[in-house]
This record gives sequence, C-alpha cells and structure tokens, in this order.
Amino acid sequence: MAHHEALIKDVLDRARVAVAAELERLFAEHRRTGYGPLYDQLADYPFREGKGLRPAICFAACRGVGGQDAQAGHSAAALELFHNGALLHDDIEDASLFRRGGETLFRRHGVPIAINVGDASNVFSVSLLLRNVETLGVRKALQILGEVERMSRESVEGQAIELDWIRQGRFDLGDQDYVRMAHKKTCWYTVIAPLRVGVICGSRPGIAEPTDEDLQGLIELGHLAGIAFQIHDDLLNLEADEVLYGKEISGDLFEGKRTVMLLHFLRTAPAPTRERALRILQQPRSRKRPASIIWLLRAMQEAGSLGYGRALARSFTERALEFEPRALAFMSESSDDRLFLREMLTYVIDRLK
Amino acid sequence: MAHHEALIKDVLDRARVAVAAELERLFAEHRRTGYGPLYDQLADYPFREGKGLRPAICFAACRGVGGQDAQAGHSAAALELFHNGALLHDDIEDASLFRRGGETLFRRHGVPIAINVGDASNVFSVSLLLRNVETLGVRKALQILGEVERMSRESVEGQAIELDWIRQGRFDLGDQDYVRMAHKKTCWYTVIAPLRVGVICGSRPGIAEPTDEDLQGLIELGHLAGIAFQIHDDLLNLEADEVLYGKEISGDLFEGKRTVMLLHFLRTAPAPTRERALRILQQPRSRKRPASIIWLLRAMQEAGSLGYGRALARSFTERALEFEPRALAFMSESSDDRLFLREMLTYVIDRLK
Repeated sequence: MAHHEALIKDVLDRARVAVAAELERLFAEHRRTGYGPLYDQLADYPFREGKGLRPAICFAACRGVGGQDAQAGHSAAALELFHNGALLHDDIEDASLFRRGGETLFRRHGVPIAINVGDASNVFSVSLLLRNVETLGVRKALQILGEVERMSRESVEGQAIELDWIRQGRFDLGDQDYVRMAHKKTCWYTVIAPLRVGVICGSRPGIAEPTDEDLQGLIELGHLAGIAFQIHDDLLNLEADEVLYGKEISGDLFEGKRTVMLLHFLRTAPAPTRERALRILQQPRSRKRPASIIWLLRAMQEAGSLGYGRALARSFTERALEFEPRALAFMSESSDDRLFLREMLTYVIDRLK
Repeated sequence: MAHHEALIKDVLDRARVAVAAELERLFAEHRRTGYGPLYDQLADYPFREGKGLRPAICFAACRGVGGQDAQAGHSAAALELFHNGALLHDDIEDASLFRRGGETLFRRHGVPIAINVGDASNVFSVSLLLRNVETLGVRKALQILGEVERMSRESVEGQAIELDWIRQGRFDLGDQDYVRMAHKKTCWYTVIAPLRVGVICGSRPGIAEPTDEDLQGLIELGHLAGIAFQIHDDLLNLEADEVLYGKEISGDLFEGKRTVMLLHFLRTAPAPTRERALRILQQPRSRKRPASIIWLLRAMQEAGSLGYGRALARSFTERALEFEPRALAFMSESSDDRLFLREMLTYVIDRLK
C-alpha cells in the first residue's frame, strides 16, 4: 500500500509541476504584451496548492497508451484552467468563503473582477487547446476541442440543474437526481474528459488507436469514479480537517447544497426533525446561525446519513474497480500509469483533501 | 440617403433572421437531449430584439468577397452568442437594471443562474465554430477559431482594465486611456472580428484570398469604427429615448462608468464642481439619488462634454471613412455589401438605439 501512495503522490506532483510551468509560460507571454494585472489574477487559483487530479489523469492516460508527457502538456493545462474558471464562478454562485486555503477571489477583488477572471480562464483554456495544432496536428487538435466542447456543455447543464434546485427551493430529490446532476457537473470535467483527452493525446494513429468503444468505456469508468469523487468531496466538506481541506467546514450546509447525505437525511428523518432542518436550510446563508448548522450536522450523523453517503461512494468505487480491467484493457497492464489510474479509483474516496 | 437607410435596415434584418434560425436549431437540438430549462434561458437575450450589428457585419464581409450567406452562418451566430454572453456577465458586473427593453437576466433569475447562462453562451459559441469544420473545411475552421480566441482575449483584457478603474476608484483618465480600453473591450468583438471572420468565411483559397495586410487593415478600420460606436453608445445611454434604447437612461452615471464625456467633464470642470461630481460618483449605486444624477448630467451638458464626445466620435468616423477605400480595396467596389460596410461607419454614430 505504501508503494501505491508514493506512486499517487508522484504522479500528482509531476503533473502539477508540468502544468505550473505551462501556465507560467502562457501568462508571462501575455503579461508582456497585454494588460498585466489580469494575469496576476488569473494565476491566483492555479498557484494555490490544489490536488491537480485532472491534469494527472490526463498525463497518465496519455502515457498509458504509449505517449509522452509533452503530447498532453497543453491539454492538461487547459483542463486545469477550465477547472479554475469553474471554481471562480462556482465560488460566487455558492457565496463560498474559502478556496484552497485562502479567501475566495471574489472576496478579495469583488464579484465583477472574479466573473471576468473566470471568463478569462475559459478563454485561455481554448488558447492552449489551439496550440495542439502545432504539437499534435490538425486532426487530434480538433478531436480534443470536440471533447472539451462536450465536457463544457455537460458542465454548464449540470450547473444549471443544481442552480435550479436552489432557486426553486427543491429538496425532494433522490439519489438518481443527484447522480444525473453530478454526472454532468462533476464526472465529465473531473474524470471522463481528462481520461479521453489524455488517451487521444497519446495515441498513435494507425498504430495504437483507441476505438470508439474504448472511448465509450471511459465515459462509464469516469462516471463511476466521478460520482464516488463527488460524494466523498461532499463528505470532506461536512467533516474534514479545515486546514488540510482548505475550505470552511460544513460550508455546504450553509449554502444549502443538495448532497447525497442531506437528501438521505431529509428522506428518512421524522417529520418534525425534517421540518426543523428545512426551516434552517431555507434561510439565506447570512441568516443561518452556526448553532443551527452544528445541530443539523449532528442530526445527520446520528441518522446515519454520512454513513449512507460513505457506503454509496464505496459502491461506486467498487463498480469502477470491477469495470477497470475491461475499460482500460487497451492500455499496457504492467505500466505505472495504468496502476495509477486504477489506484485513483480508490484514492477518490480515501483522500483527506 | 433614404436608399442607404433602407439598405442598412435590410442587411441588419436579414442577418437577424439568419442568426435567429441558426440559434433556434441549435437550442432545439440540445433541448431534446439535454437539460431543457437551460436552453430557454440561453434563448432569452438573443430573442429580445437587438441590433444584430455583429452578425450583419460578418455576413456582409463574407458576401463582399464573393461568399454565400451559408458560409458565414455558424460564425455569425457564434459572434452573436458571444456578445450575449458578454452582456449577461456585464449586466451583473455593472448591476444594470434593463437590457433590450426588459429586466436584466440576473434580476429575473438571480446572479448564479445568470453567470452560468453567460458561461453556457460562450460554450455554445465554440460549439458553433466547431461546426465550421464540416461547412468550411479544417483550415478555415481553425483560422476562425484563432480569430475568435484573439477577440476573446482582447475582450477580457478590456473588461479587466475597466473593472480595475472602478475597483480603484480611478477617474484621472484621458482619452488615450479610454481608447485603449475600448479598443480591447469593444472594437475587437463588435467590428474587427466580425469583419475578419466574415472575410475568412467568404474567401476562396487560391482564387480570392485576403492577404495578411488586408486582414491587418481591418484591425485599423474596425478600431476607428468601434471607438466611434462605443462613444456614441455612451452618448445614447446619457440622453436617448428610453423606450427606443431599451435600457435605463443615464444608467452609466449611476454605474460610475468612465466615458469620454464624463472624463472630459472631470478634466475641465472648476474644482468645486469636480469635487461635487466625484462625491456623487464615488457613492455606491444604491445610494446615488436621482436628483444628483440629473444635476450631473445637466452640468456635463453645460460644460460641453456631450458635444466634446459627439465631436470625438465623429472624428473617428471621418478617419474610418477616409481609410475605407484602402481598407476594403480587396472587395468589389460596386456591391451592396461593400456599400453597407461603408454606410455602417456612419450608422454607428447616427443610430437611435
């Protein structure tokens, strides 16, 4: 086990270093010729220490089919930048206080600037993908643009579903509703696209090319891993170590976020408890008292809702582990990168941040 | 003159109809397979009656070099959608109340949903541009993606400059500062990119292809026309007919927007008047009293600041008219489309909305 932990750390670190260098170059170039201060703001979130999970998956998938890191460099950085754009806008949408151990960008610079920096992140994500034309050729570059376009569509649809629930005050939702939303909002850009894009980057057309079925299988594998990832992320939000986690604990309860755990609790609690919980949840964030949130969290713990979420996340990971030998059959079985991708399926529910 | 007005109306109408049909198709397709309500929100701004200037320029430039409307369809719709995404985010950033004769989208659905619909507009803008691969071939499709990437970078930089002025409470700005900001924020996506993209769409590689100098000239022409457009837009905001204009009048003064007129006024007013104006401008929007804004507008009128802006806009239009014969020399001189593009240089400072 110690060996695998070291492997995961190693692959994540390596990806982070490569992405940091790529983004540093990109921002330095534009800082020289364009409006400098924008690039300092753009560099803020990427250079706060994140996990770098998405680029790591992308690089590993690329190497797993025999590619070199250089082939996935632009794409991995683009995925990380897209992720940062999503975080910048999510933080405003959810009125979040902290991100990666610091104040959220909109609290530092105001909502208008944070919206624009998020837009800029998305623009530069496309800039990087256009550079693939030179490094990967026209065909692959267009295929990857198509992947990221699909991913972005899924993301804005998933976000739209979740925001409509909040806007409409809906809590009458089951696991299926949650899974559909998270499939679009999380799975595509966190696991599915990094896997598919990485494989496309590293493939050798005519020699070792993934088939349409191979790419289709990655949607299912990424779905299972992505749902497990998101449920675990929501669990961390409820009860993780605040310093390690980098966000405020139970922020999701302040935000009224519909998680598997909260939905389970509301489904199973006795009527008076549920009504008390709904009264708390329906208040605007600024009017929610910390004491009410502590009561709610404790009630959820006692009702077994956190355990329910943990078990559900584990079941998704188990299905992913079972499917992995078939899903990644087109990769060399003995490589460290294949091993990383398999280990990642467990890492997403074991990680501490 | 009557003839030209009819021509302008005709070209604008034709472009609006084509773009509406293209977007209707796009949204209908995704409404069927994706999360429906998002597409109703996406269709809101595009189907409020706008000028449709950007698609009209794009179509006219395409036809002007011998192309067919069908060649510019995806790109013109993509430019309009990008414009709508910018409006959605701008309206939040500026806390604007009205847009195209109705409440701004963030007031109807809240800030979170409006941010996401803006993001979705940008995503579907890229979706449309990727469809150029089938209609225009790989080379042109990539060239157009490159144009729109450049345009988007200029836009977020221009927006960053303006937002930093507001954040830092800066009013010590000259015409040059304003022109640099508006070049990036307005000219690129309103005139330069529609011209360049239209020309690329319509060109016949190997037969009638614009040279790099031709495309370079369009930056200068679009710059001159775009600055004239933006100054006139700011003038309309100060004193247009509210119903025709579709936004609240003098909203820019409530927002403290740095316009050529306001900057001129602050530069030239006697110290006590300037200080009174600055005290008003530095208050948050919600605390600005309508009576103060009326005083400010009247003082600006009396100081000749509106006349100053009008003259500056006119001088940009005159320079554009002077440059047009050379800038568009590669287009057939007798065509209606060439005539439209020339007339557009005057239209941008004569229009009533």
